[in-house]
Amino acid sequence: MKKENKQNGYSRKQFMKNMGGAMLTGGFLAGSGLPFTAKAKERTVLSGNEGKKPAAVEADRVAADPTNLPGPIKRSTPKTHEIELVSREVVSEIENGMQFRYLTYDGQVPGPMLRVRQGDTVIFTHTSSPDNVLLHNVDFHSVYGTGGGANATYVTPGQSKTIKFKAMYPGAYIYHCAVPRLDYHISSGMYGLIFVEPEEGLPEVDHEFYFGQNEIYSHKLQGEMGMHEFSFEDMRDEIPLYVLLNGEKNAITAERRGPVEVRKGETARLFFVNGGPNLASSFHPIGNVWTKVWREGAIASNPERYVQTALVPPGSCGIFEMDFPVPSTIHLVDHALSRVANKGMMGDIVVKGTPDTDIFDPEYSK
Amino acid sequence: MKKENKQNGYSRKQFMKNMGGAMLTGGFLAGSGLPFTAKAKERTVLSGNEGKKPAAVEADRVAADPTNLPGPIKRSTPKTHEIELVSREVVSEIENGMQFRYLTYDGQVPGPMLRVRQGDTVIFTHTSSPDNVLLHNVDFHSVYGTGGGANATYVTPGQSKTIKFKAMYPGAYIYHCAVPRLDYHISSGMYGLIFVEPEEGLPEVDHEFYFGQNEIYSHKLQGEMGMHEFSFEDMRDEIPLYVLLNGEKNAITAERRGPVEVRKGETARLFFVNGGPNLASSFHPIGNVWTKVWREGAIASNPERYVQTALVPPGSCGIFEMDFPVPSTIHLVDHALSRVANKGMMGDIVVKGTPDTDIFDPEYSK
Amino acid sequence: MKKENKQNGYSRKQFMKNMGGAMLTGGFLAGSGLPFTAKAKERTVLSGNEGKKPAAVEADRVAADPTNLPGPIKRSTPKTHEIELVSREVVSEIENGMQFRYLTYDGQVPGPMLRVRQGDTVIFTHTSSPDNVLLHNVDFHSVYGTGGGANATYVTPGQSKTIKFKAMYPGAYIYHCAVPRLDYHISSGMYGLIFVEPEEGLPEVDHEFYFGQNEIYSHKLQGEMGMHEFSFEDMRDEIPLYVLLNGEKNAITAERRGPVEVRKGETARLFFVNGGPNLASSFHPIGNVWTKVWREGAIASNPERYVQTALVPPGSCGIFEMDFPVPSTIHLVDHALSRVANKGMMGDIVVKGTPDTDIFDPEYSK
Repeated sequence: MKKENKQNGYSRKQFMKNMGGAMLTGGFLAGSGLPFTAKAKERTVLSGNEGKKPAAVEADRVAADPTNLPGPIKRSTPKTHEIELVSREVVSEIENGMQFRYLTYDGQVPGPMLRVRQGDTVIFTHTSSPDNVLLHNVDFHSVYGTGGGANATYVTPGQSKTIKFKAMYPGAYIYHCAVPRLDYHISSGMYGLIFVEPEEGLPEVDHEFYFGQNEIYSHKLQGEMGMHEFSFEDMRDEIPLYVLLNGEKNAITAERRGPVEVRKGETARLFFVNGGPNLASSFHPIGNVWTKVWREGAIASNPERYVQTALVPPGSCGIFEMDFPVPSTIHLVDHALSRVANKGMMGDIVVKGTPDTDIFDPEYSK
Repeated sequence: MKKENKQNGYSRKQFMKNMGGAMLTGGFLAGSGLPFTAKAKERTVLSGNEGKKPAAVEADRVAADPTNLPGPIKRSTPKTHEIELVSREVVSEIENGMQFRYLTYDGQVPGPMLRVRQGDTVIFTHTSSPDNVLLHNVDFHSVYGTGGGANATYVTPGQSKTIKFKAMYPGAYIYHCAVPRLDYHISSGMYGLIFVEPEEGLPEVDHEFYFGQNEIYSHKLQGEMGMHEFSFEDMRDEIPLYVLLNGEKNAITAERRGPVEVRKGETARLFFVNGGPNLASSFHPIGNVWTKVWREGAIASNPERYVQTALVPPGSCGIFEMDFPVPSTIHLVDHALSRVANKGMMGDIVVKGTPDTDIFDPEYSK
Repeated sequence: MKKENKQNGYSRKQFMKNMGGAMLTGGFLAGSGLPFTAKAKERTVLSGNEGKKPAAVEADRVAADPTNLPGPIKRSTPKTHEIELVSREVVSEIENGMQFRYLTYDGQVPGPMLRVRQGDTVIFTHTSSPDNVLLHNVDFHSVYGTGGGANATYVTPGQSKTIKFKAMYPGAYIYHCAVPRLDYHISSGMYGLIFVEPEEGLPEVDHEFYFGQNEIYSHKLQGEMGMHEFSFEDMRDEIPLYVLLNGEKNAITAERRGPVEVRKGETARLFFVNGGPNLASSFHPIGNVWTKVWREGAIASNPERYVQTALVPPGSCGIFEMDFPVPSTIHLVDHALSRVANKGMMGDIVVKGTPDTDIFDPEYSK
């Protein structure tokens, strides 16, 4: 327990003082773009705690809007896209009064959903905000090529790099940062989803939504106010303090950013990405069922029907379809329920409409 | 290590003194029916330890009988069922000399298996035994509607509530308690399986069995006699002391309640529910193989063939078919083997009959 | 933290002194061939630490060669095989300077890949090297019969036993040691894969490779030189120090034993076994995708198409096919990424050939 951490300040200057030396050395870039091994079992703390002011919150919100995603593709011919993602390190709040230095793409968690068609070409630029202090890159699971593009998109703050790739196979794929401590970067928010739509397209639905799960490792106690420093020790043990849907505690509920809404009789498709970095998600809609599931987002496979709880491994995705026969509030959760009861993992879909007591009558006993 | 806990007594009065204040306040009911967050990382102990007598065992057995389940449905028309589950809190033994305050439906773990046909209507009553001290409810994964019925079945001790729902989609679904600390209630035994049989029915088999897995979190050491208090800290870390099949250590083996028996040449279908609350089960039959598997109990999907070890997420089910070509003892386990070697997760099927040394000759070297 | 353990010696004599008494008693054999329960939550240390010399390394390499596996079966009629596996306990190095007492089949991790055809008969002999100190046996998931053969192959050092079984069902199956502390034996290396080829055979590919994953539990700190003693406490908590592909840290990479190589345009099939004993693997090829996946090695089921990350439970297998359209270095990882960044889980496939910038152009920005 670290009482001395309470309400400590956490300036960019302090962060650079602590991290800069290690993170900006050539040693990292000289490597293969992959793992180095932590050399100590004791706790590794990223920040000094000399400050007394609360950390400056640089962004009011990192939670991605689940309704903000590209629409279905109507084309029947290939296209070339120019797409850019900007790595941004921003201090924001996991919940009220609890700050965290998020690492993001475009300032949101999960990063923007990208959508192309099988056979399309993508000219992709990765830019690191000049305000950053760490190195970043992007590994697309939709890319054939070393590191899924990670080695070729490695940039220092203020720098840009561009690669070109063809989307060869269909499906929903994660993209994520893949520097040597990729687990730390993904845990802090650097992941998103690219959907490579199959050539034949998808059936129409009334709504499409976008959600992402990741876990945050922190030395702080739950409910302790102030800046959450990252805990490499807890990450090694795979015991997070938070497990989150769209980057903040219960972000997509009335308690925080508000639920998404649909109407009775409509249908929806969810694109879901599990950044991890370590935990499989047992993704379940409380009060509903997945009508169809494409595991790992593997859209070329046959979907499973009427699945209650789908395991989505870390570093993977899922595509889920839902029906809404009755008005209700649906809680999207990881059914490893201590993550719900204790760690902030919930998002809501509110179904508006008139009751259908043939299907569900909650007040039958009255 | 908590030497002072050894052999402490644990009376209902003490339990109420410790829990009652928190659990019976209106604050819980006023909420959405879901998570609140524990506000401390330190250990939260549910009971006082002032007593010196061993806890009074109120039930000799909580392990559900794997052969006690409703039979296949022969009807070709819909029906309306009246079903009741009674929440019961009972002190029983995990293994000899080690007591635990189980939270159950109808006094057994898993709770009774329910069986209806797709299109059937269920008038469901949830009653809380007047001897209880906690609030309880029921969330059915087979229900379209808020909380799967949880909000509408919330009752205080002695109270009953009735809802009505139609079984709209086929499959094996978990039901479980879903109060704010639902992870604690499920860990303590409040889960079971409802099978919504598809309209066309299922192929005949010689036997059907019913099994459920859950993990128990306790402050006690393994092998330490006396009352096991619940450890919220270990649950948050997802590190249980016990992982159990049918609620007791090696319950369905010769060591405790006895195995189930079949004969060579017969077939069987297993209905399996993983309550969790947190761990995925790698369900495997030692000395056999799953001939067919419907993952998550999703009976409308095509089964997988000849699967050795099937991942069943927490808050989900599986349907498994088996052949028995030779006499043998089959150990049902979670193949995360430290849960078998160390935490009590095993159940046995004994296959009677004459050897067939063409298939298996264990004494070939003699 | 146990500073006193640094650089301690670890002789066979010390090992026997510590283990022999417990492990060679008849009590184990008298049991059912399965679990006993550790009776203490405190750390259980296997070795004395009186010595001062570094442990003697008895084998230069335990990492199985991924290219060393039996070829496809061309027969259309059944055959009887005589197969032997020899249990060998050997001290070798996880990484340079860090010794571990491996328990192996034939001195390699994973043990030799076996390959038969559905309907074949296997006369299998298990021999324990006379230099061993522990009891061992073999449980084949491909066997109908008690313990998958474990009870009938239980041998003391120097002893042999032979069983006979028919391979009744097709698929890739794990075999592993199944003595009472089977989790310790598998963690230490005692697992491998038997492939029961379907009667109709498999499509031709250019390469077949063989990989196995397991986790090692040790009291040592990461990076601490010397002998790694086994930690039963960390195994119970399912928090390993190492997670390894083919038994050594980053074994199949340029950093250690060298990657495997293919050429652009070729195809490959991977046989993958997850020994565990406890963790599911989220198996992913960085910079590539699984073109086809047979989950759990269940070759009689339909494969999934274009899967990024496949969950392989402990005590199970997977069959994976890959295409190589561009030159690249592919990292095989468990996408629970702290196991990659921190615990040694990586193996490489190097694809030689000329670039195809239509598919992947990493230098587009130049």
